[in-house]
Amino acid sequence: MKDRKIVLVGTGFVGMSMAYSFLTTGGIDELVLVDVDEEKAIGETMDLQHGLPYARNKLIIKAGGYEECADAEMVVITAGTAQKPGQTRLDMTAVNTKIMKSITENIMASGFDGILLVASNPVDLMTYVAQQVSGLPKNRVIGSGTILDTARLRYLMSEYLGISTSNIHAYIMGEHGDSSFVPWTHAYIGCKNLLEMLDENHRDLQDLNEIYHQVQQAAYEIINRKKSTYYGIGLSLNRLVRAILDDEHVILTVSCYQNQEYGQEGLYIGVPAIITRSGVETIIKLKLNEVDQGKFDASCETLKEIINSTIAPILS
Amino acid sequence: MKDRKIVLVGTGFVGMSMAYSFLTTGGIDELVLVDVDEEKAIGETMDLQHGLPYARNKLIIKAGGYEECADAEMVVITAGTAQKPGQTRLDMTAVNTKIMKSITENIMASGFDGILLVASNPVDLMTYVAQQVSGLPKNRVIGSGTILDTARLRYLMSEYLGISTSNIHAYIMGEHGDSSFVPWTHAYIGCKNLLEMLDENHRDLQDLNEIYHQVQQAAYEIINRKKSTYYGIGLSLNRLVRAILDDEHVILTVSCYQNQEYGQEGLYIGVPAIITRSGVETIIKLKLNEVDQGKFDASCETLKEIINSTIAPILS
Amino acid sequence: MKDRKIVLVGTGFVGMSMAYSFLTTGGIDELVLVDVDEEKAIGETMDLQHGLPYARNKLIIKAGGYEECADAEMVVITAGTAQKPGQTRLDMTAVNTKIMKSITENIMASGFDGILLVASNPVDLMTYVAQQVSGLPKNRVIGSGTILDTARLRYLMSEYLGISTSNIHAYIMGEHGDSSFVPWTHAYIGCKNLLEMLDENHRDLQDLNEIYHQVQQAAYEIINRKKSTYYGIGLSLNRLVRAILDDEHVILTVSCYQNQEYGQEGLYIGVPAIITRSGVETIIKLKLNEVDQGKFDASCETLKEIINSTIAPILS
Amino acid sequence: MKDRKIVLVGTGFVGMSMAYSFLTTGGIDELVLVDVDEEKAIGETMDLQHGLPYARNKLIIKAGGYEECADAEMVVITAGTAQKPGQTRLDMTAVNTKIMKSITENIMASGFDGILLVASNPVDLMTYVAQQVSGLPKNRVIGSGTILDTARLRYLMSEYLGISTSNIHAYIMGEHGDSSFVPWTHAYIGCKNLLEMLDENHRDLQDLNEIYHQVQQAAYEIINRKKSTYYGIGLSLNRLVRAILDDEHVILTVSCYQNQEYGQEGLYIGVPAIITRSGVETIIKLKLNEVDQGKFDASCETLKEIINSTIAPILS
Repeated sequence: MKDRKIVLVGTGFVGMSMAYSFLTTGGIDELVLVDVDEEKAIGETMDLQHGLPYARNKLIIKAGGYEECADAEMVVITAGTAQKPGQTRLDMTAVNTKIMKSITENIMASGFDGILLVASNPVDLMTYVAQQVSGLPKNRVIGSGTILDTARLRYLMSEYLGISTSNIHAYIMGEHGDSSFVPWTHAYIGCKNLLEMLDENHRDLQDLNEIYHQVQQAAYEIINRKKSTYYGIGLSLNRLVRAILDDEHVILTVSCYQNQEYGQEGLYIGVPAIITRSGVETIIKLKLNEVDQGKFDASCETLKEIINSTIAPILS
Repeated sequence: MKDRKIVLVGTGFVGMSMAYSFLTTGGIDELVLVDVDEEKAIGETMDLQHGLPYARNKLIIKAGGYEECADAEMVVITAGTAQKPGQTRLDMTAVNTKIMKSITENIMASGFDGILLVASNPVDLMTYVAQQVSGLPKNRVIGSGTILDTARLRYLMSEYLGISTSNIHAYIMGEHGDSSFVPWTHAYIGCKNLLEMLDENHRDLQDLNEIYHQVQQAAYEIINRKKSTYYGIGLSLNRLVRAILDDEHVILTVSCYQNQEYGQEGLYIGVPAIITRSGVETIIKLKLNEVDQGKFDASCETLKEIINSTIAPILS
Repeated sequence: MKDRKIVLVGTGFVGMSMAYSFLTTGGIDELVLVDVDEEKAIGETMDLQHGLPYARNKLIIKAGGYEECADAEMVVITAGTAQKPGQTRLDMTAVNTKIMKSITENIMASGFDGILLVASNPVDLMTYVAQQVSGLPKNRVIGSGTILDTARLRYLMSEYLGISTSNIHAYIMGEHGDSSFVPWTHAYIGCKNLLEMLDENHRDLQDLNEIYHQVQQAAYEIINRKKSTYYGIGLSLNRLVRAILDDEHVILTVSCYQNQEYGQEGLYIGVPAIITRSGVETIIKLKLNEVDQGKFDASCETLKEIINSTIAPILS
Repeated sequence: MKDRKIVLVGTGFVGMSMAYSFLTTGGIDELVLVDVDEEKAIGETMDLQHGLPYARNKLIIKAGGYEECADAEMVVITAGTAQKPGQTRLDMTAVNTKIMKSITENIMASGFDGILLVASNPVDLMTYVAQQVSGLPKNRVIGSGTILDTARLRYLMSEYLGISTSNIHAYIMGEHGDSSFVPWTHAYIGCKNLLEMLDENHRDLQDLNEIYHQVQQAAYEIINRKKSTYYGIGLSLNRLVRAILDDEHVILTVSCYQNQEYGQEGLYIGVPAIITRSGVETIIKLKLNEVDQGKFDASCETLKEIINSTIAPILS
C-alpha cells in the first residue's frame, strides 16, 4: 500500500472541490481521478495539474481506472445521481444503491484494503451499502455523515456569538438531511456551557432554533441560488481525509456503524467519533436527553426501514 | 483602505476557484463577491462560508455591491461572456468591452483606489479597457496574461525532465492565446541552460515544440472534456493576488502596459515583470532573438488593430 | 501604523524562538529585533535572514532601536533577568520591575499606540507594570499568562487519553507559576465532560492530579536538563501574536486585567479571554466551585501584596 | 521502514533549530531525538512537545537511543565538537572523524537502511566518513554542503536587487567554508543573465564580490555577536529533509559524492544536485570557466589531502 495515495471515484463538483483543495492544503502524495466518463477525468486531471506550479507541495495527479485502488490508502466515493423532480426518495435510493454496489465491487476487485470514505447521498445509506458489499471492517468504511452540517452550525454560531469557530464545540447528529438534531445541552463555547452563556448574556434561546433551522435549510438555499453545493463539502472531505492520513485522533461527526453506542445497531448514522489512520477508533457517547434520544431513534428507524425495504433486496 | 480586502467581480467558475482557494492558502482578510446575479453571489458566499471552520485562517466572506470596492486593496474581475459558436473573435471582444467598461465605471464610482486585476478574456484587451476607463496608473492595472500558460509550460517541462517545477525557469510571452511564444534561449533548469542540457542528454529538441504545442492546445483539450477550465487559472490568480498583497517582488508573466521595453507601446500584453504591492514595478527585459521579436511584434500588431477598430470606438 | 509589523524587545532564547517560528508560520510582515546588546540583535537578525529563502512568506527582518515601535502594531517584550540563586522572588521582582519600567518608557516615547504583549517573568506582575507605565488601555496590554501552562496540560491530557489536543478543552488559570489551578469541572473532551468520560472508562481521577503535577513541574524538569525552556513558550507567543493580528476572536488563557469578572480587580492574572485585533475583548466567566475560587483568590492576594509592597514604590 | 520518521543525532542548537521548525512546517510524522547526554535529549523533547498544541500537524516527538534508527526513513547527524582556540583544523577533523565513525556505527548497528544527512563540520569530510563507515550507497549519504551558503548568497542578492529570493538563481559551490565560490556566469534573475542585468543597470560588478565576501564572513559575523549560528542552518536542514521525504526532484547545493561530474572523484563536496526520496539522483553539470574550475579543483585537492593524511588512518 502506498502511503497517502488516494483515489477519488466520481469527478463531479463535490469530488473535484475536494481534489482541488489538496493542491493548497497538501497532506497527500498521490491523487487518482476515476470516473465513468473517462474523458472527463482526464480533463479534470489536466486542469488540476496546471495549478501544480503554485501548489503547496509535490503532488502526483493522474486519471485512471479502478486498478489504481489496489495500493491506495484511501478511496473516496462521491459518485451518484441527484434526486430528480418527481422521483421519490426511495426511488433515488434504489438507483444509487445499484451504482454504489457496482463501484464498490470494482474497487474491491482491485485488491483494495484501505479505508473507504463515502460522500454519495443518501450518505448514511450509501455508506451501509459500501460496507456490506466490500466486506471491509466496519470501522474502515466511513460516511461523511453530518460533518458539513456540523461545520455549518459552528459557522453560524460563530457569527452569532462573535467567537472563533475553533471555540464552538457543538455537534449535529443523526441522519445527514432532514432528521438530524443538535444536542444543545452538550454544546460549549470554549469550556463554558452554551446555554449558561446565552442565559447570562440575556440572549433568546429561540435564536438557537433559528440557527439550526438555517443549517437545515442551507443546502436548499444554496441550490436555489447556484444549483448545487460543493465548496463546503469539498473542504469537509479534505479535512476528513487528512484527519485519517495524519492519524489525528480527532473527534469529527461522521457516519459510523452503530453497535449499541446510542442504543441502535445494524446501520450507519452520524455521531461524533475519534478518527485515526485505522478509520473510526471509538464513538464518543454523549448522554442524550429524552427528546434527543427520541429524535435519534426515529432517525434510525427510518433508515432501517429503507435498508430492509429497498436496499436489502438489491444487495441479496 | 483596508489591508488585504479584495473584491471579486464575477462569480463564475474561474472567479470562484480563486475565491475557494483562499480558504486554504490564507493571505487575505476579507473577500467580497459581486455579481450581476446577486442571488448567485449570495449562494456562492454561503457555500464558501460553510468551509470556514476548516479554513487555514480567519477570513471574512460576504456578498455585496460595487460600493464594497471603496476600501478594497484589490479588485479582481473575472466577469465576461465566453465566445459563442458562430461569433467572431471581434464580436466577442466588442461585447466584453462593453461589459468591462460598465464594470470598471461601477468600480471607480465607489472611490476605489487600489490595484485592478483583470482575468476576463480576451485578457490583454480587457486589461487595456479597464485601464483606459478607470484612469488608474498603468502599473496598477494588471491582466492575468500568460501566467497560466507559463504554469502549464513549467508543469509539462517538469514532467518531461523529471525535475521540480520550482527549478523550471521559462516564460510564455505575448498574447494569452494563440500568438504566444516561448523564448527558449532564455530557459533554464536551475542555473543550467535548457538547450545545453537537452543537447547533453541527447534529447530531441523537437520535444520542446511538442510541449509548447500541448500548452497551446491545453485549453481546448480541457474544454472538450469538461466544458471549461478554471482550477489552473483559479490557483494562478490566487498566486498573483498574494504576490501583490505580500509585496513579494516576484517575477511573474502578466499582462503589462508596454512602454518600449520590448519596442512596443500603447497596449497590454504578457511579459515577465516584478510584482509588488504597488502592482507592476519593473518589466524584465530579455534580449529576444529575431524570430521571437517577430512573434512578439506580430502579436502586438494584432492587438493594436483590434484596439483601434473595435475597442476605441466603444470607449470614445 | 503598519499592519503586521511587530517589534520584539529582548533577543534571548524565548524571544528568538518566537521570532524564528514566524519564518515558517507566516502571519506577520515585518519583525524588528531590539536588545540592549545591539550587536546581539544584529547577529540574531543575520541568522534569521539567512533562513528567509526557505521561509513561508515574504518577511522583513531587521535590528533596530525603540524608535521602530512608533508604527508597530504590536510590541512583544521578553527581556528581563532570571531568578538568581540566593535571590528571593521579591528581589527578582524588584529588579525586573525597574527593567520593565525603563523598557515601557522607551517604547511609549516612540509614540507607540498598539498592543503590548508581555512575556517577561513574573509575567502577571510585569504585565501590570507595563500597563501602569504605558498608560495604554488595559485591554491592549496582555501577558502571556498561563498560555504555555494550558498548552502543557492539553498535551499531557492528549497523550493520556489518546485524543488530539484540538479536542482537549481545559484551562490552567491563575498566576503563571506555582499557584495556578485547573477548574476540572469545566474540562471537556470534544463535547463530553471530562470527569464523566473518566468515570465511564474506569480511569482513576487521581491521574488528573498527576497530570497537573507534571505541568507544574515541567519548567523545572526542562531547566534541569537544558538550562532553560523556550520552544514551548516561543510557539505559544507566536500563536498569541497571530490570534491578535488575524483578529481571530479566539479564546486563550492570558494574563488580563481583572475588573470583577472573577471577583477581583486591580491586577493582571491568567484567565480565558476572547482575543481580537483590539487585544482582550471579553473575559470568559466560568462559575468556579468554592475550592477553585479559593485558589484564585489566594493567587490574587499574593500578587496584590507584591504590587503594594514592591512594585508600587518603584512606579510612584 | 516508517514513512516520514526521522531521527536526529545531536541536540545542539543546530539540530534543535531544525527539530523545532518541523512543528510549524509539518512534513514529518515522527521525530526522535538522540544525544549522548540522554537527559538533554529528554529535556529538549519536553520543550518541543509543549508546543504541539499550536503545531501545524500531528507529530510524534520522543527521546530515544540508536535503536530508533532501525525503521527511520532518515537520520540527520548534527553532533560533533566545534573548533577550539589553539586547535588546528586538522586536529578538529581528527576528533570529529572519531565521533562520526562511532555515531555511524551505532546507527548502522540498528539495521538502518534509509538516507543519512550529515550537517556536522567539516561537513564535506564528515559526510565522507559517514559514507565510508556506513557502507550505504553513495547517493543515500548527503552532506548539508553549501545549502546555507547558497541561501545566504540568495538573500543578500535579493536585498541588493530588490527581487524575491525565489527568482535569484545562483549557487555557491565547493567546500562549505573558506574555499567555496560562485560561478557567476551561471547566475540568473528569473530567466535573465545576472551579469547582463547588472551591466544594463550600470551596477558595479564589484558589488558581487562584496556580496560573496559577506557570505563568506557571515558565520564569523554571527558567531562574534551570538556565539554560534543555527537558525539559518536549521531551516536549511528542514528544507532538505522535506525535499527528500516529499520526493521533490528539486535542485539544491549539497555535499555529494563526486564521480567525475566535475572532473573529480573519491570525495564529497558541494555541487547542485537533484534531490529525491532516493537521495541524490543526479548532479547538475555546469560548464565552469577556467577560473572557477581551478577553484573547484583546489578545493578538492585540499579535501583529498585531509582524507589521506588524517581520515584514512582513523577509518582503516
